[in-house]
Amino acid sequence: FESHDYDPIDNDVEEEARRSRKRGEYAEYETWKWLMSVLIGLVMGLIAFTVDGLIEKFNDIKFGAATSVIERDRSARFGAWFVFVALACLLAAVAGAFVSYVEPLAAGSGIPEVKTYLNGVHLKGLLKLRTIIAKLGGIAFSIGSGLIAGKEGPFVHGGGLVGGGLSAFGSHTLGFKTHKPACFRNDADKRDFVAIGTSAGVAVAFGAPIGGMLFTLEEGASFLSNSMMWRAFLATCTGVLVTHWLNQLDFDAGDFARAKFGTHRDFGLYTDDEANYSRIFWWYFWEVPIFAAVGCLGGLAGAFFVNVNVKITMWRQSWIPVKNRARRHLEVVFICFVTATLCFVLTAASPCRRDAIRTQFFRQLYCDDGEYSAYGQLFFSPLSQSFKYLLHLGEVGEFGGDAQNPGQHAFDMDALILYWLIMFTLMTWTYGIGAPTGLFVPSLTVGAAMGQIVGRTVHAAVASTGSTLTIDLHTYAVIGAAASLGGATRMTVSITLLVMETTGAMQLIIPLMITIFFAKTVGDKYSYGIYDTHIKIRGAPFLNEPELTGPGLDKLRVNEVMAANMVSLKPIAKVRDVVDALTRTSHGAFPISEDDPPGTPGNPGETIELHGSITRGLLLKMLTHRVSFFNPAIEGGRDRRDALYETATERDELLEKLKQIPFKSPGIEAIAPSLSRGDMELSMDLTRFMQRHPFIVHADARLSRAYRLFRTMGLRHLYVTPSKPQIVGVVTRKDL
Amino acid sequence: FESHDYDPIDNDVEEEARRSRKRGEYAEYETWKWLMSVLIGLVMGLIAFTVDGLIEKFNDIKFGAATSVIERDRSARFGAWFVFVALACLLAAVAGAFVSYVEPLAAGSGIPEVKTYLNGVHLKGLLKLRTIIAKLGGIAFSIGSGLIAGKEGPFVHGGGLVGGGLSAFGSHTLGFKTHKPACFRNDADKRDFVAIGTSAGVAVAFGAPIGGMLFTLEEGASFLSNSMMWRAFLATCTGVLVTHWLNQLDFDAGDFARAKFGTHRDFGLYTDDEANYSRIFWWYFWEVPIFAAVGCLGGLAGAFFVNVNVKITMWRQSWIPVKNRARRHLEVVFICFVTATLCFVLTAASPCRRDAIRTQFFRQLYCDDGEYSAYGQLFFSPLSQSFKYLLHLGEVGEFGGDAQNPGQHAFDMDALILYWLIMFTLMTWTYGIGAPTGLFVPSLTVGAAMGQIVGRTVHAAVASTGSTLTIDLHTYAVIGAAASLGGATRMTVSITLLVMETTGAMQLIIPLMITIFFAKTVGDKYSYGIYDTHIKIRGAPFLNEPELTGPGLDKLRVNEVMAANMVSLKPIAKVRDVVDALTRTSHGAFPISEDDPPGTPGNPGETIELHGSITRGLLLKMLTHRVSFFNPAIEGGRDRRDALYETATERDELLEKLKQIPFKSPGIEAIAPSLSRGDMELSMDLTRFMQRHPFIVHADARLSRAYRLFRTMGLRHLYVTPSKPQIVGVVTRKDL
Repeated sequence: FESHDYDPIDNDVEEEARRSRKRGEYAEYETWKWLMSVLIGLVMGLIAFTVDGLIEKFNDIKFGAATSVIERDRSARFGAWFVFVALACLLAAVAGAFVSYVEPLAAGSGIPEVKTYLNGVHLKGLLKLRTIIAKLGGIAFSIGSGLIAGKEGPFVHGGGLVGGGLSAFGSHTLGFKTHKPACFRNDADKRDFVAIGTSAGVAVAFGAPIGGMLFTLEEGASFLSNSMMWRAFLATCTGVLVTHWLNQLDFDAGDFARAKFGTHRDFGLYTDDEANYSRIFWWYFWEVPIFAAVGCLGGLAGAFFVNVNVKITMWRQSWIPVKNRARRHLEVVFICFVTATLCFVLTAASPCRRDAIRTQFFRQLYCDDGEYSAYGQLFFSPLSQSFKYLLHLGEVGEFGGDAQNPGQHAFDMDALILYWLIMFTLMTWTYGIGAPTGLFVPSLTVGAAMGQIVGRTVHAAVASTGSTLTIDLHTYAVIGAAASLGGATRMTVSITLLVMETTGAMQLIIPLMITIFFAKTVGDKYSYGIYDTHIKIRGAPFLNEPELTGPGLDKLRVNEVMAANMVSLKPIAKVRDVVDALTRTSHGAFPISEDDPPGTPGNPGETIELHGSITRGLLLKMLTHRVSFFNPAIEGGRDRRDALYETATERDELLEKLKQIPFKSPGIEAIAPSLSRGDMELSMDLTRFMQRHPFIVHADARLSRAYRLFRTMGLRHLYVTPSKPQIVGVVTRKDL
Repeated sequence: FESHDYDPIDNDVEEEARRSRKRGEYAEYETWKWLMSVLIGLVMGLIAFTVDGLIEKFNDIKFGAATSVIERDRSARFGAWFVFVALACLLAAVAGAFVSYVEPLAAGSGIPEVKTYLNGVHLKGLLKLRTIIAKLGGIAFSIGSGLIAGKEGPFVHGGGLVGGGLSAFGSHTLGFKTHKPACFRNDADKRDFVAIGTSAGVAVAFGAPIGGMLFTLEEGASFLSNSMMWRAFLATCTGVLVTHWLNQLDFDAGDFARAKFGTHRDFGLYTDDEANYSRIFWWYFWEVPIFAAVGCLGGLAGAFFVNVNVKITMWRQSWIPVKNRARRHLEVVFICFVTATLCFVLTAASPCRRDAIRTQFFRQLYCDDGEYSAYGQLFFSPLSQSFKYLLHLGEVGEFGGDAQNPGQHAFDMDALILYWLIMFTLMTWTYGIGAPTGLFVPSLTVGAAMGQIVGRTVHAAVASTGSTLTIDLHTYAVIGAAASLGGATRMTVSITLLVMETTGAMQLIIPLMITIFFAKTVGDKYSYGIYDTHIKIRGAPFLNEPELTGPGLDKLRVNEVMAANMVSLKPIAKVRDVVDALTRTSHGAFPISEDDPPGTPGNPGETIELHGSITRGLLLKMLTHRVSFFNPAIEGGRDRRDALYETATERDELLEKLKQIPFKSPGIEAIAPSLSRGDMELSMDLTRFMQRHPFIVHADARLSRAYRLFRTMGLRHLYVTPSKPQIVGVVTRKDL
C-alpha cells in the first residue's frame, strides 16, 4: 500500500507558475471545476440508464423464458428449471469472467476500495478505464443472473472511476490525452472529483440526490468544504435528472413536452404511475420503542452477517485465492446455480392458496387456475422487484395493505420467514465473490422481510387485546429495511436519507433515524461495519475519525511512534546517490538536508536541518526525464542547471511532466538501467523541486495532535522537530 | 473581537489528568455527548411548541379583535384600524423592549452572530441566559405584532444558546453550577454543542430535520466530523418529534394512542389534515430554463435587497445607534405602525370581486355579501399564513390550483404584484431593527409571490399559443420562494432541503437545486449574502473557506503578514512581569521562552526558542487563584511549587478552576489591585500550564498553507519558525 499526498505541491517551480497566474486562469479553473461536476452527473445518468436497461432486458429474457415453459405444461418441472438455471448461470459466467479475466478489482461492491482511496491509500489500478468497464459491464450481468447482489456498490465505484477519469482529461489505458486546464495537476483535485463521482453513482443507483451527497460526506470525505458539497449535490441532481428524462423519453416519447414530472414517482429504485408518498406510511407514537427494537434486531443481524462473512472470506482467501482465476470463476457460477435452483425449487414446491384479492395480482405459476403461488411471487422475481412487493409500493386506496385488510402484495407468514432466512444466508455467502456485487439491495430486501414479520407480530398482539387498531405494514417493511442496512454497514445519516428517498417515505424520517441509531449502536458492540471489516482484512492503513480512535492516541507521544531512520538527500545530489536511495529503500519521500543522516560519522547528533522534502514519485519522474541534471565540473554546468526553462510555456510543460500523479511512473528498477555511467556521475539540483515547507510537529506532542493534522490535511509525511523550535513571529486571525 | 481557541488544551497538568483517565470515564464522556444532544433536541422542541402557541394566541387576539369590529359595522373603518394598529404596536413595543432594555444582542436574526461564533470569534454576551430569554420571548411578540419577520433566525440563535447553556451544566447569570463530567472543559466541546443546538433550532422552526442539520454544516461548521453530524441529526429529529407529539397532544388529546402520524402533514411550517405531498407539485422538462430564470431573478432581487439594506444599516448606525435605547425602541414601534397601517389600508381599500370558488374561501371583510376582498386575504393575514396561501398548500383535487382552474386561494395578478412590492420594501426596511426578527419567512413569502407572478405569465404565454397545457402554480410559488431566499442568503444545499421539507415538495428537489444554483451565482456577482454582509459590517475577522478566499493567499507568504513583535514570558516568571505583560499589551497569548524578546540587548537575533505558549485567559485565572505562586528565595519555595496538588481530586479541582472558557474572568485591571506588593515579587511557574506544542508553520510558507491549518484546526495563534527547522524523524500513515 502506498499513500496519496493530498497536500498541494508547493515547490519553487510550482510557486513561480502560481505567482504568474492571472485572474482569468483562476476563473477558468473555477469554471472547469463546476462544469466537470455537471459532466460527471451527466455521464453517470447515461450509464445508469444503460445498465438499468440491460438488467431489465436480462430479467425479461430469463423469467420470460422460464414462465413460458411453465405455462406450456404445468406438470413438467425439469424443463423450466433447466431453462431458468442455464440462463442464470450463463449470465453469471459472463459477470465472473469480467472479474477473473478482465480486472480483479471489479469484484465485490467497491465501496471499501473507494473509501480507502478517499482516505488517502493508493490501490493500484483502482481508477483505470478497464476497471470501470469490467465493473459496470459486469454488474448488469451479475444482477441479471439472479445473484443476491445490488447495483449500488458497483455504481459507487463506477462513479468514482468516472469522476477520476473525466478529470484526468485523458486515459492511460487508451493512451490519449487532451489539452486541459493547467490546474488539475494534483492528487487533491483528483480526489475531489472521485468523491463527486461517488456521490453521483449512489444518487443515480438509488434515484436519491440528497442521499448520494451525504453518502460521500459520511463514508468518504474527511476533507469536506461547502463548495465541494455543493458541487457534489449539483452532480447528483444532474445525474438523477438525466435518468428521469431518459426514462420518460423511453416511456412516453410521443409527447415529451406534456410529460408531467412529479405526479408519478420519479425518485427511488422504482418508478410508479402515481406517487403515493403521503398516503401510504403512518405510525403511532407507541410504535417508536418497537422501531427501536427492530433497530436492535437489525444491528444484531448485521453483526452476525459481518462475523460470518469474515469467516467465509478467510476461507475463501485460502481456497479460492484471487490468483486462481478458474476456481474463482467457477465459484461465481456455482453460487448462481445454487441460488437459481433454490429459488426455482421453492417456487415449484410452493403451496397454492386462494384469496380474492391476491389471486388477481400474484402469479399462478405451478398452481391451478384461481389459486396463487404463495412462495413464487417472492422467490420467482428479480430481487429488486421482491423488495418492492415487500414494501407494498404502488398500493393505495382500497387495496392498500394494512394488517386488517392485506393489500395486493400481502405475503403469508411462512413465505416471509422462508424468504428472510434463505436470502440472508445467500447474501452472507455471496458477498465477496469474484463478481461485481453490491450489498445495499440484498440487505434492504432481507430487512424488509424482517420488518414485515415484526409488523405482523405486532398486529397479532394488538388484535389479541381485542383492539381494532390498524397497523401499517408498509412502515414496518421500510423500518426493517433501514435497520438491516444500518446494521450491516453502520452508515447513519446517509442511510436514513437513502431509504427515505428510495421509498418516498418523508414522513418516516424520524422513525428511520431512531431505528438506525439503535441498529448502529447495537451492531457496533459486536463487530465493525462490513466495509470497515473488509478494509481491515485487506490490511489497508485506514485513518478513522479522531473521535473513533479511542484513548490510545491521547496517551502516546509522537516520538514513541515516529521513524528516526531517515534517509536524507543533499540539495545538490549526485544522480548516483539519488538512484541509490531509491533502490535501497522504499520510502515514499526523502528529507532534503545538507547534513549527513543522524548517527553517521559526519553527524553524531540526532537531528538534521530540514531544507525540504521530495517524494519518490517526483524523483522517479525527474530521473526519467533527466530534469535538472548538470555536471558541476564543467564550465557552465551551473548555468545549465538554472536554465530549466525559458518561457512560461516551457515551464508549464515541465510541470505537466512532473505532475503529482505518483503511481503511473515505472519503478526505479526500470529507470536505473537507462542511466549511463556518465549520467550517474552528474548532479541533480533538487532545491527547486522540493516541497520547502512540509507540515511539522513536535516530537513530544500528543499523538492525537499529529493524527488530527495528518488526517485533516491529507498528508503522506509529517516531519518531527525536537521539542523547542526557534520562532520568529506569530500569526493571528487578524493577520489572515 | 477576541478569538476562540478550539485547539484542545495540552499542558502538563491536563496531560497528567488524561493519562490517568480510565476507560469508564471515556465512556461516560461519550455517553454524555449523546445524551446532551437528545436533551438539546428535547428542550428546543418544547420551546418551539411554546413560542408557536404564543404567536398563535397573539394573532388570534389581534386579527380576532379587528375582524369583530369590522363585522359589527362594515362602513366605519377608523375603529377597526385603531384596534388593529394599537394591538400591533403594543406587541411591537414589548418586542422592542426586550432588545432595548434587556439585551441588545437579541436584535435581528442572530444568524450572523452565531456564524461568527462558530467560526471562532468571540462576541461578548452572545451565549448568556439573558440573551436567550430576550430572544425567544421577543420573537413571539415581534411576529405577533405583524412585523415582517420570521422566527427562524432567532431560533437558530436560541438553539445555539440552549446548546451552549446546557453543556455548561450551569449558568453564569443564575449563578449556579452542577456537577458535570470532567471533560466538557474546553471551547471545542462547547462549540460542538452550540452547533448542535443551532441545527435543532432550525429544525424545530421549520419542522425540517435534514435541513436543520445541513444548515449548520453549511453555515457554521468548518469542523465537521461524522459523529458531530450524527449527533446533530439526532438532536434535530428529537426536536421535531417532540413538537409533533406536543401538537398532537394539544389537538387530539382524547385518543393519542390512535393518532396516526404520517397521514397528515407533520412536517414543515404548517400542519394540514391531509398530506398531499405527492399530488400537488408537477413540472415539465421545458420549464427547467424558466426555473433557472426565476433563480436569476431571485439572485438579482437578493442582491438588491442586500445592497439597499446595507445603506439602511449604515444610516441606522449613525441615527439610531444601539446605545440610544429610546430611539431604537421607538423605531420598532414606528415600523410596526407603518406596516400595520399599510396592511390595513390596503385591506380596507381593496377592490371586491365575485367568484364562485373563491368567495367560499376568501374573507369578506369590507366587501358586500357574496363578494370577496381581493387584497384582504393576503394583507390581512399573519405573514406565515399568507405564505401558505401563496403556496396553495392544503389544496388538492377539484379545488387544486393550476392556471386553468384556479384553486381556492388563487390570487389576482394585481394583489400579487402589490403584495410582492410592498412586502419586499418592508422586509428590506425591517431587517436590522432593534427587535428579534428572522429573514427566512419574509423572504420566502416575497419569493412565493414573485413565483406566482412568473407562473401566471408563463401560463398566459402558453395559452396565447392556443395550447391547453396546464401549468402548476404551486410549483412556481415554491421555486420563487427558494430563489428569493437563496438570493438573499446564498445558502445552497440547506435551503434546497429546508424548502423541500417545509413544503413537502420532494418531487421538486432537482428544480429547486437548479433554481438556487442560479440565484446564488447571479447574486454573488452583485453582493455578498446578507449574513456575510452583516458580519463584514460588524468588522468581525471571519475566516471563509480557503476555496472562497481568492488568489491573494496563494501569492503571499507567511512572513509578509505575521507579527514579529512578540512579548514573551520566562518559564519561571515574576508575577510582576506577568502582570506587566498583561497590562501593557492586549495579546491573547504569550510565547514562553528563556530568551529575551528578539531585537533587545539580551537577544540581538530575530528568533526565540519556543518552550510553549500560554493564553491570556489562563494567566488571568492563575493570577486570580494565585496558582503556582512561590518564592524562590525561601527555602522550600520550589517544593511548594511542585506541590500544586496531591490527589487526583485536587488536580481535577484545579483544572476546573482554570478551564478554558476564557471570557468570563475579569480583566487585568480588576485583578492587579488585589495583588499585594509582596505578591508581585513572587515567581510563577508557567511550565506546567503552558501549551507545550502549539502548531507551527514556516516563515516562508505560502499563506494559504497557514490559512488552511488555522481554519481547519480552529486555532487562535500559529507560531512561525524560520525556514529550516531541525528534525528528528518522520511520521507516516503506517505509524499511526
